[in-house]
Amino acid sequence: MQELLMIDGLQYSNWSPELFRQMREGGLSAVHATIAYHETARETLSRIGEWNRRFEAFPDLIRPVRQASDIRLAQQEGRVGIFFGFQNCSPIEDDIDLVEVFRQLGVFIMQLTYNNQSLLASGCYEREDNGISRFGRQVIEEMNRVGMLIDMSHSAERSTLEAIELSSRPVIISHANPTSFHAARRNKSDAVLRGIAESGGLLGFSTYPFHLRGGSQCQLSEFCDMVARTADMMGIDHIGIGTDLCQQQPLQVLEWMRNGRWSKAKDYGEGSADNADWPAPLHWFRDSRDFPVIVRGLRERGFAEDEVRKIMGLNWLDLLERGTAPRQ
Amino acid sequence: MQELLMIDGLQYSNWSPELFRQMREGGLSAVHATIAYHETARETLSRIGEWNRRFEAFPDLIRPVRQASDIRLAQQEGRVGIFFGFQNCSPIEDDIDLVEVFRQLGVFIMQLTYNNQSLLASGCYEREDNGISRFGRQVIEEMNRVGMLIDMSHSAERSTLEAIELSSRPVIISHANPTSFHAARRNKSDAVLRGIAESGGLLGFSTYPFHLRGGSQCQLSEFCDMVARTADMMGIDHIGIGTDLCQQQPLQVLEWMRNGRWSKAKDYGEGSADNADWPAPLHWFRDSRDFPVIVRGLRERGFAEDEVRKIMGLNWLDLLERGTAPRQ
Repeated sequence: MQELLMIDGLQYSNWSPELFRQMREGGLSAVHATIAYHETARETLSRIGEWNRRFEAFPDLIRPVRQASDIRLAQQEGRVGIFFGFQNCSPIEDDIDLVEVFRQLGVFIMQLTYNNQSLLASGCYEREDNGISRFGRQVIEEMNRVGMLIDMSHSAERSTLEAIELSSRPVIISHANPTSFHAARRNKSDAVLRGIAESGGLLGFSTYPFHLRGGSQCQLSEFCDMVARTADMMGIDHIGIGTDLCQQQPLQVLEWMRNGRWSKAKDYGEGSADNADWPAPLHWFRDSRDFPVIVRGLRERGFAEDEVRKIMGLNWLDLLERGTAPRQ
Repeated sequence: MQELLMIDGLQYSNWSPELFRQMREGGLSAVHATIAYHETARETLSRIGEWNRRFEAFPDLIRPVRQASDIRLAQQEGRVGIFFGFQNCSPIEDDIDLVEVFRQLGVFIMQLTYNNQSLLASGCYEREDNGISRFGRQVIEEMNRVGMLIDMSHSAERSTLEAIELSSRPVIISHANPTSFHAARRNKSDAVLRGIAESGGLLGFSTYPFHLRGGSQCQLSEFCDMVARTADMMGIDHIGIGTDLCQQQPLQVLEWMRNGRWSKAKDYGEGSADNADWPAPLHWFRDSRDFPVIVRGLRERGFAEDEVRKIMGLNWLDLLERGTAPRQ
């Protein structure tokens, strides 16, 4: 297991040395950490400041990933590399210059929308989907230029297909599953997934119960079967893991994610008034320590060793190397 | 002249390709560009964004200085390296974490105050000077840690002496002159200048007429005589140039510098109601093209060639190498 380079393509946890140790115990060399949902530019600087404090306080456990090659260093050092992403475009506000400024601060990935319509595109919970806005076209071009990956995990179908068409670099779905496996609003159609693969991008399979058939009862074999079917459709080079782990977060964080400052009435997102809290975790995937369980499941499903390596980390690493270098 | 590495330790001009060409024509390899006077954190991000646009638009003329060694590269490339500084602590607001965030964005230098009392210290125009505040002590320690130079050009005497005592790394006066040469509020006592030298820091001689004996009529020989006397007191390794050039700026920029958002009544700073506008420039130092005039003046005053090199750029380069590397 030691030499397997593993990357988690999305977590938003209540970060602590305990959770960093779990990442290491699970064999992770890098984690994509969400640092903003609805934050303004100024608030996002504080989120980055908080990460700087963690890098200073726990240098034995974690390290910042300033360029993709730092992930190899993290593996050699036995530390977990952290790279930043936004789940929304709120940090850039209405200012195209902030794309490059945040890229300079280590932000590798930005979603164009989070469930709702944004200044750039439409979210997967909107009634209507106008595709990519005027500002959105400019931002896609700028993200391509500075090397910030376009993530459409929470975006609507037309917006996603247009983003793929407009972008000259890979577009990703960092955390979701195929609609063909489980028809949730957040999951993705075959048309979207084929487009993502054609763009050179990647789908990170989610372990968030709302994205899985059977919810918290989904079995490891079903999960691995979904991976196999998706590999057949998208190709083995275009899939990875994006667990969507939100560990040890209080309900109010889930409410911030769902409601931000935009809603007076309570919005329940993927939940409901009767089911408002965090879902129960999968019994076979409690947290970062269970990454080896997925590895075992993929092997049992019949994936070859080099395929397992690609899915568990090498595809993410290759994507980051291709997608985050500034264009010369 | 070609091999002489020259650095201007402060400018705040109405940046344009014309001015960048003048810097190159004058033989400059690097310029310390002020990017904030009274800006908030958010506003400062836009100032950085504007510089990113200039770096993108004029790659043949300028380059960003991300580390001190980039200045050598700039010289080799025939470009002008730009490094950033704040003339005030307003960009960090009340948040110690923003020191490191702005250092990550390339800010090498920060003044603890701009004329007025700040959250950190007192300015040279205040009636009272309480020295360094509680927050100020924390910020000095943090600046020392991340490698951001402490600049006391616009600070009051006691605050400056305390900053020197508290800081474990060099403290500088990027742009001012000795009080012994010309008794202006912005100029510095011998006690301060000796302290700056003992800290390993540097005084950048200003060509701003308000800082000079005789104002706009000050002669080159008088200026060079001041340099010689200061070299005797501080040592040849602790002096440089910080012209304070504010080229092609409208009056409203001077008013922003003097009044920010803090004053309803008009404050005239170093000027007066009768003399509210920009001062007339020195006849022998119009702009960056006249750097060779200073070189000639210093040679005529009797400085040896290696001393001229130190004053014109090598002392600044050495200081930046020692003072801006993050502490391990």
